[in-house]
Amino acid sequence: EKILRYEFWSISSSPTSEDKISLMWFGNVQKGDTSSRRQGRKKDEDDGLRVFFFCTLWLFLSQIISSITLSDLLPAKNGEEPTIQFLLELVDILTNYVKKTFDRSTKVLDFHHPHQLLEGMEGFNLELSDQPESLEQILVDCRDTLKYGVRTGHPRFFNQLSTGLDIIGLAGEWLTSTANTNMFTYEIAPVFVLMEQLTLKKMREMIGWPNGEGDGLFSPGGAISNMYSVMIARYKYFPEVKTKGMSAAPRLVLFTSEHSHYSIKKAGAALGFGTENVILLSTDERGRVIPADLEAKIIDAKQKGCVPLFVNATGGSTVYGAFDPINEIADICEKYNLWLHVDGAWGGGLLMSRKHRHKLSGIERANSVTWNPHKMMGVPLQCSAILVRDKGILAGCNSMCAGYLFQPDKQYDVTYDTGDKAIQCGRHVDIFKFWLMWKAKGTIGFEQHIDKCLDLSQYLYNKIKNREGYEMVFNGEPQHTNVCFWYLPQSLRGMPDGDERREKLHRVAPKIKAMMMESGTTMVGYQPQGNKVNFFRMVISNPAATQSDIDFLIDEIERLGHDL
Amino acid sequence: EKILRYEFWSISSSPTSEDKISLMWFGNVQKGDTSSRRQGRKKDEDDGLRVFFFCTLWLFLSQIISSITLSDLLPAKNGEEPTIQFLLELVDILTNYVKKTFDRSTKVLDFHHPHQLLEGMEGFNLELSDQPESLEQILVDCRDTLKYGVRTGHPRFFNQLSTGLDIIGLAGEWLTSTANTNMFTYEIAPVFVLMEQLTLKKMREMIGWPNGEGDGLFSPGGAISNMYSVMIARYKYFPEVKTKGMSAAPRLVLFTSEHSHYSIKKAGAALGFGTENVILLSTDERGRVIPADLEAKIIDAKQKGCVPLFVNATGGSTVYGAFDPINEIADICEKYNLWLHVDGAWGGGLLMSRKHRHKLSGIERANSVTWNPHKMMGVPLQCSAILVRDKGILAGCNSMCAGYLFQPDKQYDVTYDTGDKAIQCGRHVDIFKFWLMWKAKGTIGFEQHIDKCLDLSQYLYNKIKNREGYEMVFNGEPQHTNVCFWYLPQSLRGMPDGDERREKLHRVAPKIKAMMMESGTTMVGYQPQGNKVNFFRMVISNPAATQSDIDFLIDEIERLGHDL
Repeated sequence: EKILRYEFWSISSSPTSEDKISLMWFGNVQKGDTSSRRQGRKKDEDDGLRVFFFCTLWLFLSQIISSITLSDLLPAKNGEEPTIQFLLELVDILTNYVKKTFDRSTKVLDFHHPHQLLEGMEGFNLELSDQPESLEQILVDCRDTLKYGVRTGHPRFFNQLSTGLDIIGLAGEWLTSTANTNMFTYEIAPVFVLMEQLTLKKMREMIGWPNGEGDGLFSPGGAISNMYSVMIARYKYFPEVKTKGMSAAPRLVLFTSEHSHYSIKKAGAALGFGTENVILLSTDERGRVIPADLEAKIIDAKQKGCVPLFVNATGGSTVYGAFDPINEIADICEKYNLWLHVDGAWGGGLLMSRKHRHKLSGIERANSVTWNPHKMMGVPLQCSAILVRDKGILAGCNSMCAGYLFQPDKQYDVTYDTGDKAIQCGRHVDIFKFWLMWKAKGTIGFEQHIDKCLDLSQYLYNKIKNREGYEMVFNGEPQHTNVCFWYLPQSLRGMPDGDERREKLHRVAPKIKAMMMESGTTMVGYQPQGNKVNFFRMVISNPAATQSDIDFLIDEIERLGHDL
Repeated sequence: EKILRYEFWSISSSPTSEDKISLMWFGNVQKGDTSSRRQGRKKDEDDGLRVFFFCTLWLFLSQIISSITLSDLLPAKNGEEPTIQFLLELVDILTNYVKKTFDRSTKVLDFHHPHQLLEGMEGFNLELSDQPESLEQILVDCRDTLKYGVRTGHPRFFNQLSTGLDIIGLAGEWLTSTANTNMFTYEIAPVFVLMEQLTLKKMREMIGWPNGEGDGLFSPGGAISNMYSVMIARYKYFPEVKTKGMSAAPRLVLFTSEHSHYSIKKAGAALGFGTENVILLSTDERGRVIPADLEAKIIDAKQKGCVPLFVNATGGSTVYGAFDPINEIADICEKYNLWLHVDGAWGGGLLMSRKHRHKLSGIERANSVTWNPHKMMGVPLQCSAILVRDKGILAGCNSMCAGYLFQPDKQYDVTYDTGDKAIQCGRHVDIFKFWLMWKAKGTIGFEQHIDKCLDLSQYLYNKIKNREGYEMVFNGEPQHTNVCFWYLPQSLRGMPDGDERREKLHRVAPKIKAMMMESGTTMVGYQPQGNKVNFFRMVISNPAATQSDIDFLIDEIERLGHDL
């Protein structure tokens, strides 16, 4: 019976309960059931013809059903079997993908241009239509989606700050999407809200704020976390802006490194400061803010009639992996009464390492911190925290007290309804995967991961610093896992510095990168910076990467680039 | 051999590859292997003692290993078996959860107060520690997390606009988290970027913009989508604000209904307009904006020296489910040259229904539209789109041209790198689940779902409009699935209107809701609105809900509330 039902399901693909019932009736008939509807028929009726009739009708109905029914598998009564079967078939696809991702003989990607994918690779049709597809086709679509994507967990994927595929984190995401709830109230996310509170407290303890006091939220990425920091700084000094707008404040200026993430500028534009009022600070050769430049620019701004408000110190810059000198910046912020934010989106994870946390020394003096566990700590995307030392300020800045969501007369302690502190209304559950990974690894597990990645980048640095054909973008050992270098093809070695060499060198990294992507062997980022032409920026956050993968990357760059 | 390895894995819980090898060695010894390390021992050595020795050592090592190793299951070589086994055990937990969620004999929630959960229910310890937990414990944590959560897919969960658990959508989320990538570039999300473009185009076609032209993005929720609309409106009329800040613009005002979502006000506060410059429009008895009031307030603002910039029309308000008269509002916006945004976060889904889309008539005249498929269309959280009629404006407003991410010299058409249009940098892949559901259901599948939900709300309305003990908050049939009503306990029926009755009635809904949550039978929202005391707001977006669940809700309200 069970098998029969599953067969019908396979053919009809996506029956609702009513459809399944009707199919089952036909099934019973086929199996020789003498139902009332067959009473009175002549005994000599041709059995073969009858079978043919039912088969035809059945195929016809299957066709209709597969084209008209919804695939809302579970709400249908008795729909459990196909639902679970479907999910298990998908899990089979996903676990195969996971296994292959870690197999170095698998390509990192199977590159195609946009127009190729849009034209429909091997029948992979991206277009949507009025009519439903069968469940079988849905599984094929899932397979194709993975096939033409990029394996960001591959041991040789070094392209972004977020790499790797942590299985506990993945499990956490699968559970999160199954729970499918929203962080705005304790009412519908009691466990996740508490996990968020406890985890944020733990993070604040690691920052070094007394007793882990303060506030915070998980937000949709580091750019939004940084935006929060600017908003709350403004609220702290000019709370009337919330009601009266920027015209209630003088001309406010923000300071951030020329090497800092572009999200500070984006926040300046969005929040109504204007990008011209985001003043970029000069850095030393290693990309670290020069504190004296900060002080000079504060004084200059004040002389021009502006009001300095906010300084961002970067804890691990995007390209160089530079750590700004937080203590010296904090001294200046205290002197001029400015908000100090530390953008530790990339470098915050180093707080977990007893060996490396000194690079963030002074972070405990910050008013707010951005820290993205989805970067250095290998948590699946997205997982970014904004942490604030002052307890009430997030709520003060953002709350609107919507009556339909944040009723004050609930039966539980409504201070656990955190939604009104956010600029979002609905908020995705980003905490669970991180909490689960922390449970599974312990703090020491994160520490080991981070130490290992930094050791690997040291290995890479040692390997190439004096190697023929390589030039380092800046001198000295890596502070973070960023290693920035130029690769010089044979033809450029020994060529005197000048415009021609610069122009040629500028084109090398993009060319090698394009070939890497087309061969699908590895991926690493490149970019120009200031007056420096395109160079590779190697970063390591992938727990799967080993020294052999670093060796492979170097070999691959040389294989592809040697004769350019 | 395989079984042995798995046993070891079970005991040691989370071995890295090295640990597993050492365990396997002990395993072999136990099985009587005569390894080189055992040569030279006396033949009459007590076998029992030897076994005891190894067992002790083995248990001791297991203890150490389970406390010190990471659970980074896959990066370890030969780690495939435990990884897949772990994931399958999790899937078993999740599929059981899914099945039970649709079983009406399962509770919607098992309510506990924050302090109870924090104290550790039945050993469920939320605290994080330095040391790792075993994988077995991780699975227990997963089970407990689900146990103490809320089943938002339960057929009797009516608490939010986002309800239900679509299995195809869930499958889409599982795949998304396995792919673990980022929407900012085509480089690392080629398939998802194209899916987003095609889906947004399809949505713009349904809005009615010519050829589906325009732009858009999926954002982390309706509040952020609405924030985008205000930002781009400002950029359209006062592009210099991007660089010079709000001081470069006159005093700008925004208009939105007093019934509109609080995110418009939040955007006003965040973006530097100030909440006082978000002018609330009066509504009729059904919660729809009165166009004449808009025009009067525009004129008034101009007379006060303000510059009207932006009007938000709500397509399906949060509490009443009201649809503002878009065409009449559009006439006024054209007359005064204002940006027209339609917040269709909740009601946008009705565009999929030939029967109900007329309620959004005029939406094709909007400059921008918010539309959350995660609400009425049952897509898992989060899935919200901001759609814009003008093609270049999102990029113009937000782009910062970060060199490390949006290199102009890539080998593919870099107009597919969409990240710079966003205020986020990293952006979660919200598109895939929606794309997959659309594939599986077809447009007609969404239509059927929406029509069914609206039929159900009609059924509820018909059932209670004249029923004893019920008062409708406003007259007339529901426009959306919102049905707003007071339930009057026996003691309040016949009591004359006045402060005493109002105060008592105000306390009824919270009391019933608290009892519902404690008995775990169903969940429905309540709130006050304007001068109206607490009333229930019933909404239906759950594909699992049937008439019997509506009947159950009414019975439950009466069971719990009759004698209050």
